Amino acid sequence: MKLLRIGSVGAERPALLDASGTLRDLSGLVPDIDGDLLADAAAMDRLRVAAEGGALPELPGGGEGEAESLRVGPPLGRIGKIVCIGLNYHDHARETGAAVPAEPIVFMKAPDTVVGPHDTVLIPRGSEKTDWEVELAVVIGRTARYLGSHEEALASVAGYAVANDVSERAFQIERGGQWDKGKNCETFNPLGPWLVTADEVPDPQALDLRLWVNGELRQDGTSAEQIFPVAEVVRYLSQFMTLYPGDVINTGTPAGVAMGMAEPKPYLRDGDVVEVEIEGLGRQRQLLKSA
Amino acid sequence: MKLLRIGSVGAERPALLDASGTLRDLSGLVPDIDGDLLADAAAMDRLRVAAEGGALPELPGGGEGEAESLRVGPPLGRIGKIVCIGLNYHDHARETGAAVPAEPIVFMKAPDTVVGPHDTVLIPRGSEKTDWEVELAVVIGRTARYLGSHEEALASVAGYAVANDVSERAFQIERGGQWDKGKNCETFNPLGPWLVTADEVPDPQALDLRLWVNGELRQDGTSAEQIFPVAEVVRYLSQFMTLYPGDVINTGTPAGVAMGMAEPKPYLRDGDVVEVEIEGLGRQRQLLKSA
Repeated sequence: MKLLRIGSVGAERPALLDASGTLRDLSGLVPDIDGDLLADAAAMDRLRVAAEGGALPELPGGGEGEAESLRVGPPLGRIGKIVCIGLNYHDHARETGAAVPAEPIVFMKAPDTVVGPHDTVLIPRGSEKTDWEVELAVVIGRTARYLGSHEEALASVAGYAVANDVSERAFQIERGGQWDKGKNCETFNPLGPWLVTADEVPDPQALDLRLWVNGELRQDGTSAEQIFPVAEVVRYLSQFMTLYPGDVINTGTPAGVAMGMAEPKPYLRDGDVVEVEIEGLGRQRQLLKSA
Repeated sequence: MKLLRIGSVGAERPALLDASGTLRDLSGLVPDIDGDLLADAAAMDRLRVAAEGGALPELPGGGEGEAESLRVGPPLGRIGKIVCIGLNYHDHARETGAAVPAEPIVFMKAPDTVVGPHDTVLIPRGSEKTDWEVELAVVIGRTARYLGSHEEALASVAGYAVANDVSERAFQIERGGQWDKGKNCETFNPLGPWLVTADEVPDPQALDLRLWVNGELRQDGTSAEQIFPVAEVVRYLSQFMTLYPGDVINTGTPAGVAMGMAEPKPYLRDGDVVEVEIEGLGRQRQLLKSA
């Protein structure tokens, strides 16, 4: 299923994009798309049956071709935490001149950085190095604690989504200490448009990821380049922290970020447009604006 | 006011500790103690008036001397994010051999690490370096974005609490990358017992902080030693991220952690008891247990 949330900020309604491209209203069946829903196998089954039976009402204004004017929110409400993996693509490690990590590098983003896939992204005041990162986001559906195998790890994954792990490189690297300082600016985590359930993503290590700035292709990678694949990332993290339904993992970015390019590096400026796409998971479009 | 939350995990009721040491039930007045309440000046005024008028009902079992059997939860529900400041005490920087930071070091803990002040703390599997950190926690009551002064910063603070920023030093420092890996283990952020409103803490830079392990005094510091005081921490953070009502800032720990001691460093073991106290903000007691 392709689950999404439609409506104004903070008042999104749960919806489903059906095979014909029509948006279906889920608000009669479930209160929201969140960790509680993803952890509830019976409720997920009811959604699936209703979707396949064609019984779901059309979302007002959500017919094929007319849905463009609706605002798409992040596809997950009440996110618990966002755990991020740094330097997780061989090609990205090469471009930044970093060694291939011996084990996953872990940092955090606050859930309040999440915005919808087409919402405006704010360039922080004083920023000169706001950068992009297309990432495969993993959404947890089952509590994961000290997992013993990759099979258990993948069974904890409810689905996948597109994320843009927006990063301010000076704040992240040049301002003393830990990366989180450059990762938690307001609007720095566009997510969606869809939460695609895991059954529709048979191999998370075979997805193409692309990102354009002002129409120019900047990132063109594949999750096959991940140093630590999704199953290992989830297993590994569960040794250090408990993952809960509704948590999100940003699994790292492939080559092609501004930081990895020749001087003058083309960091984002007011008025730039970033488009972000992962095969089968949908496409984002953000206008950059000075805060 | 001394606000707190009493009851079993996930089912805590809002309460108030009055001047006579009696617990008063707030659940008839407010649904919970959370960011929504702290941001609602009228609701906070109603609590204050009710408390001063002596009109609040006694919490069942919450009379003076009989309240010890009640479970105390964290004093804040629905925490948005926890931002932590590293190496923020002159004496702690000295003991770890670190240089005094030129600007605040920022890292993050997930809200799901928070437990009540007397709850069990789990030593992660594979841990050999679980450490303690008494910290002054700041609770945000007003949205803070690009604050221009220390006055604005302090006006954003709803209150203060005791935190134990439990840390696994090998995970934090020896396992590649960022500190967050050793800061986000389950139960690693005991918080409370009380959220003491800011009007009762006239000078957050004049508080004594103490921590004992198995009755032995290990940390005995004062917030006067903070390199970046509370007002500067809040102002500074608001340049990099937006702080929202219900966010928490752990403002760093004074000297006396296990990592700073001579070999063999007395890291925490199953069965140890940690007690944590800040002047006027109450006292915690945690039993350590292997996960």
